[in-house]
Amino acid sequence: MSFFGRAARDLFNGSPASTSSKLLLLFTVSSGGLVAYSDSRSQPDEVPASIVNKNDGQKKKVVVLGTGWAGTSFLKDLDASMYDVQVVSPRNYFAFTPLLPSVTCGTVEARSIVEPVRNIIKKRNGEIQFWEADCLKIDAENNKIFCKANFDNNTVGSEEFSLEYDYLVVAVGAQVNTFNTPGVKENCHFLKDLEDAQRLRRTVIDCFEKAVLPDLTEEERRTNLHFVIVGGGPTGVEFAAELHDFLIEDLVNIYPTVKDLVKISVVQSGDHILNTFDERISSFAEQKFSRDGIEVQTGCRVVSVSDKEITMKMKPTGELCSIPHGLVLWSTGISTRPVVKDFMEQIGQGKRRILATNEWLRVKETENVYALDNSGTLTMVEFRAVVDDIIARYPQVETYLNNQHLGDLTDLLKDAMSEDKKEVDIEGFKKAIHLVDSQTTSLPATAQVAGQQGKYLAKCFNRKNQCKEHPEGPRRFAGPGGTRHFFAPFRYKHFGQFAPLGGEQAAAELPGDWVSMGHSTQWLWYSVYASKQVSWRTRMLVVSDWTRRFIFGRDSSRI
Amino acid sequence: MSFFGRAARDLFNGSPASTSSKLLLLFTVSSGGLVAYSDSRSQPDEVPASIVNKNDGQKKKVVVLGTGWAGTSFLKDLDASMYDVQVVSPRNYFAFTPLLPSVTCGTVEARSIVEPVRNIIKKRNGEIQFWEADCLKIDAENNKIFCKANFDNNTVGSEEFSLEYDYLVVAVGAQVNTFNTPGVKENCHFLKDLEDAQRLRRTVIDCFEKAVLPDLTEEERRTNLHFVIVGGGPTGVEFAAELHDFLIEDLVNIYPTVKDLVKISVVQSGDHILNTFDERISSFAEQKFSRDGIEVQTGCRVVSVSDKEITMKMKPTGELCSIPHGLVLWSTGISTRPVVKDFMEQIGQGKRRILATNEWLRVKETENVYALDNSGTLTMVEFRAVVDDIIARYPQVETYLNNQHLGDLTDLLKDAMSEDKKEVDIEGFKKAIHLVDSQTTSLPATAQVAGQQGKYLAKCFNRKNQCKEHPEGPRRFAGPGGTRHFFAPFRYKHFGQFAPLGGEQAAAELPGDWVSMGHSTQWLWYSVYASKQVSWRTRMLVVSDWTRRFIFGRDSSRI
Repeated sequence: MSFFGRAARDLFNGSPASTSSKLLLLFTVSSGGLVAYSDSRSQPDEVPASIVNKNDGQKKKVVVLGTGWAGTSFLKDLDASMYDVQVVSPRNYFAFTPLLPSVTCGTVEARSIVEPVRNIIKKRNGEIQFWEADCLKIDAENNKIFCKANFDNNTVGSEEFSLEYDYLVVAVGAQVNTFNTPGVKENCHFLKDLEDAQRLRRTVIDCFEKAVLPDLTEEERRTNLHFVIVGGGPTGVEFAAELHDFLIEDLVNIYPTVKDLVKISVVQSGDHILNTFDERISSFAEQKFSRDGIEVQTGCRVVSVSDKEITMKMKPTGELCSIPHGLVLWSTGISTRPVVKDFMEQIGQGKRRILATNEWLRVKETENVYALDNSGTLTMVEFRAVVDDIIARYPQVETYLNNQHLGDLTDLLKDAMSEDKKEVDIEGFKKAIHLVDSQTTSLPATAQVAGQQGKYLAKCFNRKNQCKEHPEGPRRFAGPGGTRHFFAPFRYKHFGQFAPLGGEQAAAELPGDWVSMGHSTQWLWYSVYASKQVSWRTRMLVVSDWTRRFIFGRDSSRI
Repeated sequence: MSFFGRAARDLFNGSPASTSSKLLLLFTVSSGGLVAYSDSRSQPDEVPASIVNKNDGQKKKVVVLGTGWAGTSFLKDLDASMYDVQVVSPRNYFAFTPLLPSVTCGTVEARSIVEPVRNIIKKRNGEIQFWEADCLKIDAENNKIFCKANFDNNTVGSEEFSLEYDYLVVAVGAQVNTFNTPGVKENCHFLKDLEDAQRLRRTVIDCFEKAVLPDLTEEERRTNLHFVIVGGGPTGVEFAAELHDFLIEDLVNIYPTVKDLVKISVVQSGDHILNTFDERISSFAEQKFSRDGIEVQTGCRVVSVSDKEITMKMKPTGELCSIPHGLVLWSTGISTRPVVKDFMEQIGQGKRRILATNEWLRVKETENVYALDNSGTLTMVEFRAVVDDIIARYPQVETYLNNQHLGDLTDLLKDAMSEDKKEVDIEGFKKAIHLVDSQTTSLPATAQVAGQQGKYLAKCFNRKNQCKEHPEGPRRFAGPGGTRHFFAPFRYKHFGQFAPLGGEQAAAELPGDWVSMGHSTQWLWYSVYASKQVSWRTRMLVVSDWTRRFIFGRDSSRI
């Protein structure tokens, strides 16, 4: 490598990639306006490393499971010189998951959104060790985990090992929830990690290559080009939008004979797509999709998926209908991973769906295990049990729900209406809703939540000694009078949420109940997503991918 | 897409990417000199499309098998309006194969060196149809081929189809030759196509991740980090060089604990690596590798490869030795694909190793089948038989070979020395050598040969009608007096050959027996490889990959 190369590399690698570029300005070409996005920190007070009381004796062992958003943001902020830190993850890289839908159609490349974990940890103060392995079992009693590496090739030596910990940080994330629907595991695509996105990209091209082969009937061509997305949440909607863009901007030119046979369908069990967003966004998305010819089927529950057909039950009529498909993306719901489930059973949380933590992200019933990025979905049955309980106490809730046109929910709950009615004011209702909230997932499973949790926990770890002497948290309920918790509890700060809708349009919920939709929002999306990249390297790669797409279009090679 | 995007895209896509940038100038930073590389055409006389007599009746059906160098260059130059052209290939893209070794270590990305076939054919005059499928059988008698598509996912409709042809262009390329060495197929990596390169990249990272796991002995770590390359040709040497660069520029920083345990070995059956190059290049490469700590083992023949060990026979002593390995790349020799082998049997070439063509690239014993990129290696036994025949006739050849220090060859041939000696002059010897040459592979299996063949054949096809009236070829031996061949025979023009050796150094044989070595040659390599890209898109991607590597290094994520 030449002198120039080395110098340039040192320059970029040496700069604190994570802290700079917090303010990114972009002229929006389409709207002519100026958009500024400022990223304030959720925990503003920082402690200089020199103030922290270093533990001079034997360092405590911290084991981190996972290198997703939570694990990585924990590692980036942890003062690794205070602890003996070991990280275990089956993937040796961090992936910028919000751009996964873009990878499925080649708008950005898979490599542009990943950063090797070893690049991230080598910049930390102390030495952090990383092992590329799966954690198979947590032994809560003996403070030990058991791991196994998994390599395709002929390597020698044991792939199994165990690690002891003083503190364990569980940040493995969730897995896909098939709700035990028959055939989903075998015949559907998912969009949880990078391999999924790459596989999806190849399969989309496969569907087109198959559809143009000589000896097919038009019906067969249509079937191969029917793309079904189950789940109208942000992931499913963004994939539908990306696929539609890929189709009209690139594929129509290279597969002209079948361009009119393509169909994209979004199947949603609720009444609207993007139903966690503001109602305006939801209907904006539906209108946009309707103009684009993307079919949105609401009130449909998928009961099975075979290699050829997807079978759905129409909620209002209870009717079953089967439609042939070329590709099904299953993007509805997440569940707890087996290793965490097993751990929950050990600590007496076996009946819960999701690992329960307290306000300081410590797992309940444990002293030294923390859980980040620990979200999941509640089954309908569980949800119904909780709401039943509320409606039993406050029957007016049903009237209120009806007024708000939330008919479905009350249909679901109509059996729970036999008890005496009592007055309830809006405060009582809010309290009841809060009960639902606390019983279900306390926070959505987003990159934002996970990232903030990792940052928060790293700060607690960094200030452990300091805060032991000067506690900052609220007063304890139990224990001797006047004692306080060491730290302030974790508080999530919501910065808003984007939903890219294709055709250079996006919708966004911004802080302060702002809603923004259209072309300028897409430019805001570009600027935010560029600024949020984990390193200067990935930032440049993502921006150059976008530029390349504008100039040359997307690549349709099947690799 | 915005107006700007569309305009920019049209601009780039509309420009004739293949014909421009034939002259590329580059200031070589390292040597301070100026290097100019001019790419002259092997067939200088071009015919404007308007002169060509169009076939107004039923168009002849041309079927092309393969989208490698030969097939793609044929398609790029063919006047598709004259024929009904159909292309069959298992890959829907063209890959710039000379950069495959760079892909194995992430110096360039896989996607940067591919161009979708459909992008290439949509720019042609007429309509060219492409089918992503394998050709399973050529039915020479009925002018028909049988194909089968091969998709991973659940698509519907028949994957098998057949095509009829008036002219068939066989450009499927060769496959890896394991020489039936036990265990090679199961335990070795290859470097023939893009999937190979991607797999190799993942495995290199796997070896490092495995080697740093906690419970391994130092011996096991060493084994996992022993990279063995079988074959000291350009591919093997370039991979060794890339791997060494990857190691010292990137991996030492992120795997510091095992950096001293890595070993790269090149195993070569001959006396020198790069033995098809000039002797000066060969020894320059050996000296460079010796300084870099890359072990070169010459005179070694691999007899078997297991998942743990590679067993070799030392040629001088006949001794067997086994060494443990972490990864073996098998890059020695190529052979004919089964579909071509089967075709050869049909037309009575069953005993040959390689499909025989005449000087116009038409397959002997056929009227309408052409073969491009049709090279292979001769087994030692076959080679020996041919040379035996010469030495039987001209025994002095042995003396001559001895004088030229080609001892090995004569050792091999020592049994063939019992006949009467006759005088032979140097001309006789040359003739004999020419006999060897014509019996073996007439041309090396390089991208250059294949590309020129494709171009030549396209031109013959374009000028078929014109040359029927005004033949340009030499006089025919047989037939009525005075008739001539339609076209001039194919003549390969060698533009030289590069061997990148790592550390920003390369060696090159240039036209006119020039030999160039060192840093400036590496810059020449950059400029030639950039200019030779098939489209502006890949050209920009490759150059930006090189730039990215200079600034940020290579990515070590295992994806």
